[in-house]
Amino acid sequence: MDQADIIQTAHALADAARAAILPHFRSTSLTAENKIGVSAETGFDPVTVADRAAEVAMRDILKLRRSDDAIFGEEYGTLEGTSGLTWVLDPIDGTRGFLAGAPTWGVLIALSDARGPIYGLIDQPYIGERFEGGLGRAQMTGPEGERPLKARGNRPLSEAILMTTFPAVGTPDEGAAFNAVAGQAQLTRYGCDCYAYALLAAGHIDLVIEAGLSAYDIAAPSAVIEAAGGIVTDWQGGPAHAGGRVIAAAGAQQHAAALKILSRTA
Amino acid sequence: MDQADIIQTAHALADAARAAILPHFRSTSLTAENKIGVSAETGFDPVTVADRAAEVAMRDILKLRRSDDAIFGEEYGTLEGTSGLTWVLDPIDGTRGFLAGAPTWGVLIALSDARGPIYGLIDQPYIGERFEGGLGRAQMTGPEGERPLKARGNRPLSEAILMTTFPAVGTPDEGAAFNAVAGQAQLTRYGCDCYAYALLAAGHIDLVIEAGLSAYDIAAPSAVIEAAGGIVTDWQGGPAHAGGRVIAAAGAQQHAAALKILSRTA
Repeated sequence: MDQADIIQTAHALADAARAAILPHFRSTSLTAENKIGVSAETGFDPVTVADRAAEVAMRDILKLRRSDDAIFGEEYGTLEGTSGLTWVLDPIDGTRGFLAGAPTWGVLIALSDARGPIYGLIDQPYIGERFEGGLGRAQMTGPEGERPLKARGNRPLSEAILMTTFPAVGTPDEGAAFNAVAGQAQLTRYGCDCYAYALLAAGHIDLVIEAGLSAYDIAAPSAVIEAAGGIVTDWQGGPAHAGGRVIAAAGAQQHAAALKILSRTA
Repeated sequence: MDQADIIQTAHALADAARAAILPHFRSTSLTAENKIGVSAETGFDPVTVADRAAEVAMRDILKLRRSDDAIFGEEYGTLEGTSGLTWVLDPIDGTRGFLAGAPTWGVLIALSDARGPIYGLIDQPYIGERFEGGLGRAQMTGPEGERPLKARGNRPLSEAILMTTFPAVGTPDEGAAFNAVAGQAQLTRYGCDCYAYALLAAGHIDLVIEAGLSAYDIAAPSAVIEAAGGIVTDWQGGPAHAGGRVIAAAGAQQHAAALKILSRTA
Protein backbone atom coordinates (compact mmCIF):
# COMPACT_ATOMS: atom_id res chain seq x y z
CA MET A 1 0.00 0.00 0.00
CA ASP A 2 1.52 3.30 -1.10
CA GLN A 3 0.75 5.43 1.94
CA ALA A 4 2.31 8.59 0.50
CA ASP A 5 0.13 8.33 -2.58
CA ILE A 6 -2.98 7.76 -0.47
CA ILE A 7 -2.29 10.86 1.61
CA GLN A 8 -1.43 12.98 -1.44
CA THR A 9 -4.60 11.78 -3.13
CA ALA A 10 -6.72 12.61 -0.10
CA HIS A 11 -5.34 16.16 -0.08
CA ALA A 12 -5.92 16.48 -3.83
CA LEU A 13 -9.53 15.40 -3.27
CA ALA A 14 -9.97 17.95 -0.49
CA ASP A 15 -8.44 20.71 -2.63
CA ALA A 16 -10.80 19.86 -5.48
CA ALA A 17 -13.81 19.80 -3.17
CA ARG A 18 -12.87 23.21 -1.74
CA ALA A 19 -12.68 24.71 -5.21
CA ALA A 20 -16.02 23.18 -6.19
CA ILE A 21 -17.90 24.17 -3.04
CA LEU A 22 -16.65 27.59 -1.95
CA PRO A 23 -18.22 29.56 -4.83
CA HIS A 24 -21.61 28.27 -3.64
CA PHE A 25 -21.15 28.86 0.09
CA ARG A 26 -23.05 31.96 1.20
CA SER A 27 -23.91 32.58 -2.44
CA THR A 28 -27.53 33.33 -1.55
CA SER A 29 -26.55 36.36 0.45
CA LEU A 30 -27.73 38.99 -1.97
CA THR A 31 -30.47 37.09 -3.81
CA ALA A 32 -33.31 37.76 -1.43
CA GLU A 33 -35.88 37.14 -4.15
CA ASN A 34 -35.12 33.41 -4.13
CA LYS A 35 -36.49 30.92 -1.71
CA ILE A 36 -34.07 29.44 0.79
CA GLY A 37 -31.47 27.50 -1.01
CA VAL A 38 -33.32 27.25 -4.31
CA SER A 39 -31.94 29.05 -7.31
CA ALA A 40 -34.55 30.67 -9.55
CA GLU A 41 -32.42 29.76 -12.56
CA THR A 42 -31.78 26.07 -12.01
CA GLY A 43 -34.35 24.94 -9.47
CA PHE A 44 -31.46 23.39 -7.56
CA ASP A 45 -30.45 24.57 -4.16
CA PRO A 46 -26.82 25.72 -3.95
CA VAL A 47 -25.89 23.09 -1.39
CA THR A 48 -27.00 20.29 -3.73
CA VAL A 49 -25.17 21.87 -6.64
CA ALA A 50 -22.03 22.21 -4.52
CA ASP A 51 -22.38 18.71 -3.06
CA ARG A 52 -22.62 17.10 -6.48
CA ALA A 53 -19.92 19.21 -8.11
CA ALA A 54 -17.52 18.34 -5.31
CA GLU A 55 -18.21 14.62 -5.46
CA VAL A 56 -17.82 14.59 -9.27
CA ALA A 57 -14.50 16.42 -8.93
CA MET A 58 -13.28 13.93 -6.33
CA ARG A 59 -14.40 10.90 -8.35
CA ASP A 60 -12.62 12.24 -11.43
CA ILE A 61 -9.38 12.45 -9.46
CA LEU A 62 -9.81 8.94 -8.08
CA LYS A 63 -10.42 7.54 -11.58
CA LEU A 64 -7.11 9.01 -12.70
CA ARG A 65 -5.00 8.32 -9.62
CA ARG A 66 -6.53 5.33 -7.84
CA SER A 67 -8.57 3.42 -10.41
CA ASP A 68 -8.27 0.10 -8.52
CA ASP A 69 -9.93 1.48 -5.39
CA ALA A 70 -13.66 1.36 -4.77
CA ILE A 71 -15.69 4.53 -4.05
CA PHE A 72 -18.67 5.00 -1.77
CA GLY A 73 -20.03 8.53 -2.05
CA GLU A 74 -23.00 10.23 -0.45
CA GLU A 75 -24.30 11.64 -3.75
CA TYR A 76 -23.34 9.05 -6.38
CA GLY A 77 -23.20 5.77 -4.45
CA THR A 78 -20.85 2.84 -4.96
CA LEU A 79 -18.21 2.16 -7.61
CA GLU A 80 -16.65 -1.27 -7.25
CA GLY A 81 -12.86 -1.69 -7.02
CA THR A 82 -10.24 -4.45 -6.92
CA SER A 83 -7.70 -3.20 -4.36
CA GLY A 84 -9.70 -3.97 -1.23
CA LEU A 85 -9.66 -0.24 -0.40
CA THR A 86 -12.71 2.05 -0.53
CA TRP A 87 -12.79 5.86 -0.61
CA VAL A 88 -15.73 7.03 1.49
CA LEU A 89 -16.80 10.56 0.48
CA ASP A 90 -19.25 13.04 1.97
CA PRO A 91 -18.68 16.25 0.00
CA ILE A 92 -20.73 18.45 2.35
CA ASP A 93 -21.46 17.06 5.80
CA GLY A 94 -23.75 19.54 7.53
CA THR A 95 -25.92 20.82 4.70
CA ARG A 96 -28.21 22.71 7.06
CA GLY A 97 -25.26 24.52 8.62
CA PHE A 98 -24.08 25.25 5.08
CA LEU A 99 -27.46 26.75 4.15
CA ALA A 100 -27.33 28.96 7.23
CA GLY A 101 -23.85 30.22 6.34
CA ALA A 102 -22.28 28.68 9.46
CA PRO A 103 -18.69 27.46 9.00
CA THR A 104 -19.36 24.15 10.77
CA TRP A 105 -19.95 21.94 7.71
CA GLY A 106 -17.07 19.98 6.24
CA VAL A 107 -15.79 17.79 3.47
CA LEU A 108 -15.30 14.22 4.74
CA ILE A 109 -12.86 11.90 3.00
CA ALA A 110 -11.90 8.47 4.33
CA LEU A 111 -10.11 5.41 3.06
CA SER A 112 -11.36 2.09 4.44
CA ASP A 113 -10.17 -1.47 4.17
CA ALA A 114 -12.29 -4.51 5.01
CA ARG A 115 -12.06 -3.76 8.74
CA GLY A 116 -12.94 -0.07 8.62
CA PRO A 117 -11.39 3.38 8.08
CA ILE A 118 -7.58 3.51 8.02
CA TYR A 119 -7.26 7.20 7.14
CA GLY A 120 -9.60 10.16 7.39
CA LEU A 121 -9.66 13.86 6.53
CA ILE A 122 -12.08 16.59 7.66
CA ASP A 123 -11.82 19.83 5.70
CA GLN A 124 -13.49 23.17 6.53
CA PRO A 125 -12.92 25.17 3.35
CA TYR A 126 -14.18 28.58 4.48
CA ILE A 127 -12.00 28.77 7.59
CA GLY A 128 -9.23 26.98 5.71
CA GLU A 129 -8.82 24.20 8.26
CA ARG A 130 -7.91 20.61 7.49
CA PHE A 131 -7.77 17.81 10.07
CA GLU A 132 -6.33 14.41 9.16
CA GLY A 133 -5.50 11.17 10.91
CA GLY A 134 -4.32 7.65 10.15
CA LEU A 135 -1.38 6.03 8.31
CA GLY A 136 0.92 7.52 10.92
CA ARG A 137 -0.49 11.03 10.77
CA ALA A 138 -2.55 13.06 13.27
CA GLN A 139 -2.38 16.75 12.44
CA MET A 140 -4.26 19.85 11.41
CA THR A 141 -3.52 22.93 9.36
CA GLY A 142 -5.46 26.17 9.74
CA PRO A 143 -5.23 29.91 10.24
CA GLU A 144 -2.51 29.40 12.85
CA GLY A 145 -0.44 26.94 10.81
CA GLU A 146 0.21 23.26 11.46
CA ARG A 147 -0.60 21.62 14.79
CA PRO A 148 -0.59 18.03 16.05
CA LEU A 149 -3.96 16.49 16.87
CA LYS A 150 -4.25 14.98 20.33
CA ALA A 151 -7.48 14.17 22.14
CA ARG A 152 -7.48 15.61 25.65
CA GLY A 153 -7.55 12.22 27.45
CA ASN A 154 -9.39 11.09 30.55
CA ARG A 155 -11.53 13.33 32.69
CA PRO A 156 -14.77 12.79 34.60
CA LEU A 157 -18.09 13.31 32.84
CA SER A 158 -18.82 16.14 35.29
CA GLU A 159 -15.91 18.07 33.71
CA ALA A 160 -16.67 17.11 30.13
CA ILE A 161 -17.73 19.27 27.17
CA LEU A 162 -20.33 17.45 25.07
CA MET A 163 -21.44 18.31 21.55
CA THR A 164 -24.13 17.18 19.17
CA THR A 165 -25.76 18.77 16.13
CA PHE A 166 -29.49 18.84 16.92
CA PRO A 167 -31.05 19.07 20.39
CA ALA A 168 -33.53 16.39 19.29
CA VAL A 169 -31.00 13.55 18.94
CA GLY A 170 -32.62 10.72 16.94
CA THR A 171 -35.71 8.95 18.32
CA PRO A 172 -37.39 10.01 21.60
CA ASP A 173 -35.53 7.15 23.40
CA GLU A 174 -32.23 8.23 21.86
CA GLY A 175 -32.96 11.85 22.75
CA ALA A 176 -33.72 10.92 26.35
CA ALA A 177 -30.45 8.98 26.59
CA PHE A 178 -28.53 11.92 25.17
CA ASN A 179 -30.16 14.28 27.65
CA ALA A 180 -29.22 11.95 30.50
CA VAL A 181 -25.55 12.27 29.48
CA ALA A 182 -25.90 16.03 28.92
CA GLY A 183 -27.36 16.39 32.42
CA GLN A 184 -24.11 15.04 33.90
CA ALA A 185 -21.70 16.90 31.60
CA GLN A 186 -20.20 20.27 32.46
CA LEU A 187 -21.22 21.92 29.21
CA THR A 188 -23.30 20.89 26.19
CA ARG A 189 -23.10 22.66 22.86
CA TYR A 190 -25.20 22.17 19.74
CA GLY A 191 -24.99 22.81 16.05
CA CYS A 192 -21.41 21.95 15.08
CA ASP A 193 -22.01 19.20 12.48
CA CYS A 194 -18.77 17.34 11.65
CA TYR A 195 -16.73 20.19 13.09
CA ALA A 196 -17.47 18.76 16.54
CA TYR A 197 -15.40 15.66 15.71
CA ALA A 198 -12.54 17.86 14.56
CA LEU A 199 -12.68 19.80 17.85
CA LEU A 200 -12.56 16.51 19.76
CA ALA A 201 -9.52 15.29 17.80
CA ALA A 202 -7.82 18.65 18.40
CA GLY A 203 -8.21 18.36 22.17
CA HIS A 204 -10.94 20.92 22.83
CA ILE A 205 -13.98 18.84 23.74
CA ASP A 206 -14.68 15.48 25.37
CA LEU A 207 -17.69 13.84 23.76
CA VAL A 208 -19.70 13.87 20.55
CA ILE A 209 -22.89 11.81 20.67
CA GLU A 210 -25.14 11.37 17.65
CA ALA A 211 -27.71 8.94 16.24
CA GLY A 212 -28.98 8.09 12.78
CA LEU A 213 -25.64 8.62 11.04
CA SER A 214 -24.67 7.14 7.69
CA ALA A 215 -21.32 5.41 7.10
CA TYR A 216 -20.02 8.42 5.16
CA ASP A 217 -20.82 10.71 8.13
CA ILE A 218 -18.54 8.87 10.52
CA ALA A 219 -15.78 7.09 8.53
CA ALA A 220 -13.46 10.10 8.29
CA PRO A 221 -14.16 11.51 11.80
CA SER A 222 -13.58 8.05 13.22
CA ALA A 223 -10.13 7.71 11.62
CA VAL A 224 -9.10 11.23 12.62
CA ILE A 225 -10.20 10.80 16.24
CA GLU A 226 -8.61 7.37 16.66
CA ALA A 227 -5.33 8.69 15.24
CA ALA A 228 -5.50 11.49 17.82
CA GLY A 229 -5.89 8.98 20.66
CA GLY A 230 -9.67 9.21 21.03
CA ILE A 231 -12.29 6.47 20.94
CA VAL A 232 -15.23 6.05 18.54
CA THR A 233 -17.83 3.32 19.02
CA ASP A 234 -21.54 2.74 18.71
CA TRP A 235 -23.79 3.02 21.79
CA GLN A 236 -23.00 -0.60 22.72
CA GLY A 237 -19.23 -0.16 22.54
CA GLY A 238 -18.96 -1.88 19.15
CA PRO A 239 -17.66 -0.57 15.82
CA ALA A 240 -19.29 2.67 14.64
CA HIS A 241 -17.97 3.11 11.13
CA ALA A 242 -21.12 1.71 9.52
CA GLY A 243 -23.08 4.63 11.01
CA GLY A 244 -26.13 4.63 13.28
CA ARG A 245 -25.59 5.62 16.91
CA VAL A 246 -22.15 7.03 17.64
CA ILE A 247 -20.11 8.03 20.71
CA ALA A 248 -16.79 9.76 20.14
CA ALA A 249 -14.74 10.32 23.29
CA ALA A 250 -11.49 12.05 24.20
CA GLY A 251 -10.63 9.37 26.76
CA ALA A 252 -11.68 5.98 28.10
CA GLN A 253 -13.17 7.60 31.21
CA GLN A 254 -15.64 9.83 29.33
CA HIS A 255 -16.37 6.97 26.94
CA ALA A 256 -17.23 4.52 29.74
CA ALA A 257 -19.39 7.08 31.55
CA ALA A 258 -21.38 7.90 28.41
CA LEU A 259 -21.64 4.26 27.36
CA LYS A 260 -23.05 3.29 30.76
CA ILE A 261 -26.00 5.63 30.14
CA LEU A 262 -26.43 5.23 26.38
CA SER A 263 -26.14 1.43 26.21
CA ARG A 264 -29.50 1.03 27.96
CA THR A 265 -31.30 2.79 25.11
CA ALA A 266 -34.07 0.78 23.46
CA MET B 1 -18.54 64.02 15.69
CA ASP B 2 -15.44 62.76 13.90
CA GLN B 3 -16.83 59.66 12.21
CA ALA B 4 -13.54 58.64 10.61
CA ASP B 5 -11.82 58.71 13.99
CA ILE B 6 -14.61 56.67 15.56
CA ILE B 7 -14.33 54.00 12.87
CA GLN B 8 -10.52 53.94 13.01
CA THR B 9 -10.71 53.66 16.78
CA ALA B 10 -13.18 50.78 16.61
CA HIS B 11 -10.85 48.88 14.28
CA ALA B 12 -7.88 49.62 16.52
CA LEU B 13 -9.87 48.22 19.46
CA ALA B 14 -10.76 45.09 17.49
CA ASP B 15 -7.14 44.61 16.42
CA ALA B 16 -5.96 44.93 20.03
CA ALA B 17 -8.61 42.49 21.24
CA ARG B 18 -7.60 39.95 18.59
CA ALA B 19 -3.98 40.14 19.67
CA ALA B 20 -4.93 39.76 23.34
CA ILE B 21 -7.35 36.87 22.86
CA LEU B 22 -5.98 34.61 20.13
CA PRO B 23 -3.02 33.25 22.13
CA HIS B 24 -5.55 31.92 24.67
CA PHE B 25 -8.04 30.43 22.19
CA ARG B 26 -7.69 26.65 22.04
CA SER B 27 -4.70 26.97 24.36
CA THR B 28 -5.92 24.08 26.52
CA SER B 29 -5.61 21.67 23.64
CA LEU B 30 -2.56 19.81 24.87
CA THR B 31 -2.86 20.33 28.61
CA ALA B 32 -5.17 17.47 29.42
CA GLU B 33 -4.05 17.40 33.03
CA ASN B 34 -5.89 20.64 33.77
CA LYS B 35 -9.55 20.95 34.48
CA ILE B 36 -11.69 22.55 31.81
CA GLY B 37 -10.65 26.09 31.35
CA VAL B 38 -8.70 26.38 34.56
CA SER B 39 -4.94 26.76 34.40
CA ALA B 40 -2.99 24.85 37.04
CA GLU B 41 -0.50 27.71 37.16
CA THR B 42 -2.76 30.69 37.65
CA GLY B 43 -6.08 29.29 38.78
CA PHE B 44 -7.70 31.42 36.07
CA ASP B 45 -9.49 29.93 33.15
CA PRO B 46 -8.08 31.04 29.78
CA VAL B 47 -11.32 32.63 28.67
CA THR B 48 -11.36 34.94 31.72
CA VAL B 49 -7.70 35.79 31.20
CA ALA B 50 -8.35 36.55 27.54
CA ASP B 51 -11.55 38.48 28.29
CA ARG B 52 -9.81 40.75 30.80
CA ALA B 53 -6.65 41.23 28.76
CA ALA B 54 -8.71 42.26 25.74
CA GLU B 55 -10.85 44.73 27.69
CA VAL B 56 -7.77 46.29 29.33
CA ALA B 57 -6.13 46.65 25.90
CA MET B 58 -9.26 48.30 24.48
CA ARG B 59 -9.66 50.65 27.46
CA ASP B 60 -6.02 51.71 27.15
CA ILE B 61 -6.60 52.69 23.52
CA LEU B 62 -9.75 54.61 24.38
CA LYS B 63 -7.96 56.53 27.14
CA LEU B 64 -5.38 57.69 24.59
CA ARG B 65 -7.63 58.28 21.60
CA ARG B 66 -11.10 59.07 22.95
CA SER B 67 -10.69 60.28 26.51
CA ASP B 68 -13.94 62.27 26.48
CA ASP B 69 -16.08 59.22 25.71
CA ALA B 70 -17.60 57.01 28.38
CA ILE B 71 -16.93 53.24 28.51
CA PHE B 72 -19.25 50.43 29.52
CA GLY B 73 -17.42 47.11 29.50
CA GLU B 74 -18.51 43.60 30.42
CA GLU B 75 -15.47 42.96 32.63
CA TYR B 76 -14.59 46.37 34.11
CA GLY B 77 -17.89 48.25 34.14
CA THR B 78 -18.51 51.94 33.61
CA LEU B 79 -16.13 54.85 33.11
CA GLU B 80 -17.91 58.21 32.90
CA GLY B 81 -17.32 60.55 29.95
CA THR B 82 -18.25 64.03 28.80
CA SER B 83 -18.92 63.64 25.06
CA GLY B 84 -22.33 61.99 25.33
CA LEU B 85 -20.89 58.94 23.57
CA THR B 86 -20.29 55.54 25.22
CA TRP B 87 -18.16 52.65 24.00
CA VAL B 88 -19.91 49.41 24.83
CA LEU B 89 -17.43 46.51 24.97
CA ASP B 90 -17.86 42.75 25.27
CA PRO B 91 -14.37 41.35 24.70
CA ILE B 92 -15.53 37.71 24.34
CA ASP B 93 -19.21 37.17 23.64
CA GLY B 94 -19.80 33.41 23.70
CA THR B 95 -17.41 32.22 26.39
CA ARG B 96 -18.82 28.69 26.33
CA GLY B 97 -18.26 28.42 22.60
CA PHE B 98 -14.76 29.77 23.21
CA LEU B 99 -14.08 27.08 25.82
CA ALA B 100 -15.23 24.40 23.39
CA GLY B 101 -12.91 25.70 20.65
CA ALA B 102 -15.82 26.67 18.37
CA PRO B 103 -15.20 29.77 16.21
CA THR B 104 -18.62 31.27 16.99
CA TRP B 105 -17.59 33.66 19.77
CA GLY B 106 -16.79 37.25 18.94
CA VAL B 107 -15.47 40.59 20.11
CA LEU B 108 -18.33 43.10 20.32
CA ILE B 109 -17.62 46.81 20.09
CA ALA B 110 -20.33 49.46 19.86
CA LEU B 111 -20.57 53.22 20.17
CA SER B 112 -23.83 54.53 21.61
CA ASP B 113 -25.30 57.98 22.06
CA ALA B 114 -28.22 58.80 24.36
CA ARG B 115 -30.68 57.07 22.01
CA GLY B 116 -28.76 53.84 21.46
CA PRO B 117 -26.00 52.30 19.32
CA ILE B 118 -24.88 54.34 16.31
CA TYR B 119 -22.04 52.06 15.23
CA GLY B 120 -21.20 48.41 15.90
CA LEU B 121 -18.48 45.91 15.10
CA ILE B 122 -18.49 42.10 15.48
CA ASP B 123 -15.05 40.49 15.15
CA GLN B 124 -14.29 36.74 14.88
CA PRO B 125 -10.51 36.66 15.35
CA TYR B 126 -9.84 32.99 14.57
CA ILE B 127 -11.60 32.99 11.19
CA GLY B 128 -10.41 36.53 10.61
CA GLU B 129 -13.84 37.97 9.96
CA ARG B 130 -15.01 41.47 10.88
CA PHE B 131 -18.57 42.75 10.43
CA GLU B 132 -19.38 46.43 10.94
CA GLY B 133 -22.32 48.73 10.52
CA GLY B 134 -23.38 52.29 11.21
CA LEU B 135 -22.08 55.80 10.42
CA GLY B 136 -22.71 55.06 6.75
CA ARG B 137 -21.00 51.67 6.72
CA ALA B 138 -22.37 48.12 6.35
CA GLN B 139 -19.61 45.73 5.35
CA MET B 140 -17.56 42.71 6.29
CA THR B 141 -14.04 41.51 5.67
CA GLY B 142 -13.05 37.86 5.86
CA PRO B 143 -11.28 34.98 4.12
CA GLU B 144 -12.90 35.98 0.82
CA GLY B 145 -12.15 39.70 1.09
CA GLU B 146 -14.52 42.61 1.57
CA ARG B 147 -18.28 42.24 1.05
CA PRO B 148 -21.27 44.50 1.64
CA LEU B 149 -23.67 43.51 4.42
CA LYS B 150 -27.31 43.29 3.41
CA ALA B 151 -30.02 41.46 5.31
CA ARG B 152 -31.99 39.15 3.00
CA GLY B 153 -35.30 41.02 3.33
CA ASN B 154 -38.87 39.78 3.60
CA ARG B 155 -39.88 36.15 3.42
CA PRO B 156 -42.53 34.10 5.18
CA LEU B 157 -41.73 32.47 8.52
CA SER B 158 -42.26 29.08 6.85
CA GLU B 159 -39.18 29.77 4.70
CA ALA B 160 -37.10 31.34 7.46
CA ILE B 161 -33.84 30.16 9.04
CA LEU B 162 -33.88 30.80 12.80
CA MET B 163 -30.93 30.77 15.17
CA THR B 164 -30.39 30.93 18.89
CA THR B 165 -27.54 29.89 21.16
CA PHE B 166 -29.09 27.48 23.67
CA PRO B 167 -32.11 25.23 23.04
CA ALA B 168 -33.40 26.25 26.48
CA VAL B 169 -34.04 29.92 25.67
CA GLY B 170 -34.48 31.83 28.94
CA THR B 171 -37.33 30.97 31.30
CA PRO B 172 -39.79 28.11 30.58
CA ASP B 173 -42.30 30.66 29.21
CA GLU B 174 -39.63 32.22 27.02
CA GLY B 175 -38.50 28.79 25.86
CA ALA B 176 -42.06 27.80 24.95
CA ALA B 177 -42.48 31.01 22.94
CA PHE B 178 -39.21 30.38 21.13
CA ASN B 179 -40.28 26.80 20.32
CA ALA B 180 -43.58 28.09 18.94
CA VAL B 181 -41.63 30.25 16.47
CA ALA B 182 -39.18 27.41 15.72
CA GLY B 183 -42.11 25.11 14.96
CA GLN B 184 -43.18 27.43 12.13
CA ALA B 185 -39.71 28.18 10.73
CA GLN B 186 -38.11 26.16 7.95
CA LEU B 187 -34.89 25.49 9.83
CA THR B 188 -33.63 26.16 13.36
CA ARG B 189 -29.95 26.10 14.28
CA TYR B 190 -28.35 26.38 17.69
CA GLY B 191 -25.00 27.29 19.18
CA CYS B 192 -23.80 30.27 17.16
CA ASP B 193 -23.43 32.91 19.91
CA CYS B 194 -22.97 36.41 18.45
CA TYR B 195 -21.96 34.90 15.12
CA ALA B 196 -25.67 34.36 14.43
CA TYR B 197 -26.20 38.14 14.32
CA ALA B 198 -23.32 38.49 11.87
CA LEU B 199 -24.87 35.80 9.64
CA LEU B 200 -28.17 37.69 9.71
CA ALA B 201 -26.52 40.97 8.74
CA ALA B 202 -24.67 39.18 5.93
CA GLY B 203 -27.90 37.88 4.42
CA HIS B 204 -27.72 34.20 5.34
CA ILE B 205 -30.39 33.75 8.00
CA ASP B 206 -33.73 35.34 8.89
CA LEU B 207 -34.16 35.46 12.64
CA VAL B 208 -32.15 35.42 15.85
CA ILE B 209 -34.23 35.15 19.01
CA GLU B 210 -32.70 35.28 22.48
CA ALA B 211 -33.61 36.16 26.05
CA GLY B 212 -31.70 37.29 29.11
CA LEU B 213 -29.16 39.37 27.19
CA SER B 214 -27.09 42.19 28.65
CA ALA B 215 -26.71 45.55 26.94
CA TYR B 216 -23.15 44.69 25.86
CA ASP B 217 -24.42 41.49 24.16
CA ILE B 218 -26.74 43.31 21.79
CA ALA B 219 -25.43 46.89 21.25
CA ALA B 220 -22.95 46.00 18.50
CA PRO B 221 -25.11 43.33 16.77
CA SER B 222 -28.01 45.76 16.80
CA ALA B 223 -26.04 48.50 15.02
CA VAL B 224 -24.59 46.05 12.47
CA ILE B 225 -27.97 44.52 11.63
CA GLU B 226 -29.79 47.86 11.36
CA ALA B 227 -27.07 49.18 9.06
CA ALA B 228 -27.60 46.07 6.88
CA GLY B 229 -31.34 46.76 6.63
CA GLY B 230 -32.48 44.36 9.33
CA ILE B 231 -34.62 45.00 12.39
CA VAL B 232 -33.74 44.52 16.08
CA THR B 233 -36.34 44.94 18.82
CA ASP B 234 -37.39 43.41 22.10
CA TRP B 235 -40.25 40.88 22.20
CA GLN B 236 -42.80 43.73 22.37
CA GLY B 237 -41.42 45.56 19.35
CA GLY B 238 -39.65 48.19 21.46
CA PRO B 239 -35.94 49.09 21.68
CA ALA B 240 -33.64 46.14 22.43
CA HIS B 241 -30.28 47.77 23.03
CA ALA B 242 -30.61 47.61 26.81
CA GLY B 243 -30.68 43.81 26.59
CA GLY B 244 -33.27 41.33 27.82
CA ARG B 245 -35.44 39.63 25.20
CA VAL B 246 -34.32 40.24 21.63
CA ILE B 247 -35.64 39.54 18.11
CA ALA B 248 -33.36 40.29 15.18
CA ALA B 249 -34.99 39.91 11.78
CA ALA B 250 -33.89 40.11 8.16
CA GLY B 251 -37.16 41.71 7.12
CA ALA B 252 -40.40 43.21 8.43
CA GLN B 253 -42.34 40.08 7.45
CA GLN B 254 -40.27 37.68 9.59
CA HIS B 255 -40.17 40.25 12.37
CA ALA B 256 -43.96 40.64 12.46
CA ALA B 257 -44.52 36.87 12.35
CA ALA B 258 -42.12 36.24 15.23
CA LEU B 259 -43.39 39.22 17.24
CA LYS B 260 -46.96 37.98 16.96
CA ILE B 261 -45.95 34.78 18.78
CA LEU B 262 -43.33 36.16 21.16
CA SER B 263 -45.25 39.25 22.34
CA ARG B 264 -47.73 37.07 24.25
CA THR B 265 -44.97 35.73 26.50
CA ALA B 266 -45.51 36.28 30.22
